[in-house]
Amino acid sequence: MTIIFYDIPSTFPNNVWSANTWKTRYCLNYKRIPYKTEWVEYPDIEPLCKRVGIAPTSKKEDGSGRDHYTLPAIYDPSTGAYVSDSFAIAQYLDKTYPDTPRIFPGGTDGLQAAFEPAFRSNLGELWRFAILAECVGLNPVSEEYFRRTRKEIGGKTIEEVVPKGEEAVKVWKGVEEGLGRVDAWYQKNDGKGRYLLGETLSWGDFVVAGYLICSKIIWGEESREWKDIGSWHGGRWKALIESLKKYETVN
Amino acid sequence: MTIIFYDIPSTFPNNVWSANTWKTRYCLNYKRIPYKTEWVEYPDIEPLCKRVGIAPTSKKEDGSGRDHYTLPAIYDPSTGAYVSDSFAIAQYLDKTYPDTPRIFPGGTDGLQAAFEPAFRSNLGELWRFAILAECVGLNPVSEEYFRRTRKEIGGKTIEEVVPKGEEAVKVWKGVEEGLGRVDAWYQKNDGKGRYLLGETLSWGDFVVAGYLICSKIIWGEESREWKDIGSWHGGRWKALIESLKKYETVN
Repeated sequence: MTIIFYDIPSTFPNNVWSANTWKTRYCLNYKRIPYKTEWVEYPDIEPLCKRVGIAPTSKKEDGSGRDHYTLPAIYDPSTGAYVSDSFAIAQYLDKTYPDTPRIFPGGTDGLQAAFEPAFRSNLGELWRFAILAECVGLNPVSEEYFRRTRKEIGGKTIEEVVPKGEEAVKVWKGVEEGLGRVDAWYQKNDGKGRYLLGETLSWGDFVVAGYLICSKIIWGEESREWKDIGSWHGGRWKALIESLKKYETVN
Repeated sequence: MTIIFYDIPSTFPNNVWSANTWKTRYCLNYKRIPYKTEWVEYPDIEPLCKRVGIAPTSKKEDGSGRDHYTLPAIYDPSTGAYVSDSFAIAQYLDKTYPDTPRIFPGGTDGLQAAFEPAFRSNLGELWRFAILAECVGLNPVSEEYFRRTRKEIGGKTIEEVVPKGEEAVKVWKGVEEGLGRVDAWYQKNDGKGRYLLGETLSWGDFVVAGYLICSKIIWGEESREWKDIGSWHGGRWKALIESLKKYETVN
């Protein structure tokens, strides 16, 4: 049976862009589990989740205390399960399809759970650059929603959030330094391979690759931003993304 | 042959207290590697390291740009190696003594490297409470050094750093919430055991236990602080420390 994978569309090639949903796409392709993407515009996410019973993943950041519904989410017709949150989806897939390559090899689930917050806290303020490029690449109905809700949270327009001039130089340097600390973690893998666990792919790599491929897509391969990132830390980030090319399929 | 383990003494039982050196003690005991502790007071750490050739682990935080020498460090007479930095020591021990229990099972070195910064960033400002209890438990020569150098870095006396009144309540709540996020990582281990990798101990657990046992020692088992920590998150932290009791030996 074919899993339904809920993702947010855009005007980028093949619709794909979101770092968070890329993690799930990598997992599904890595495990070779048949799936079909169902595209859901931002304003339709909450109604969809409430209608079919997909659990919220957090509380809204607007201080309202209301539930926040996010993608990725999946529906697995073979079990009837709806699952949201990319980590929970990955654990569900490992459990439900134990004969496919494991996203958490060697029972590393707990250790891997610490990785994404650690990685994100080292990305610095990359999001302040990425947010505009993401936003203008959405379809109009999602762009309007994205702009309005981000303004409600932070009080600033997307354009105001993006660092400019000297601040931009400093913030971008912070991104490079942060990824440098992540590079140091990879270097600790004892020279055994390009992945966090050496030769073996796992959740942490999909997290890193999800954010990086999102950057590559929203700015474009020929952009100054992606060329910068690709040149940092001995080309580690470019090579990581290229090594995962076979898991980029959009079904 | 017997490894020399350099640690910082104190007036606490058996001299031991430091969270950072506890990580190494746990590793040595877990691997059942013969070792003998050599006690080094704070002002003697840098001269010792320079004399025997133990590498600095960072730059001093006083803005001088000078090398910072820290313990733990070890000397292994069977190879002639001096190694500093608790993570590097653990990797050295796994490599040099491959027939002992692995601190990084399943090639998890890279993933484990991300764990300590992730854990520490979730401890909140625990250090602001701990610093006074640690300091007054040192021997006079180290206490004087500790007070002087911490004042040089932050401009405040140790007593001024400790939160008081309403701030103390808020900061302590932050410690509980931070450990709550760490508890959530442990809960992701798929119900397979009390450790990050399920039934198998590894580096991440020694990091957590090192900080926790330090708290237990400096405040004492009957203190309000340790009783609080021990009661949080279903008693996870107390149980973790108790499960490692067999690796507490001080040689």
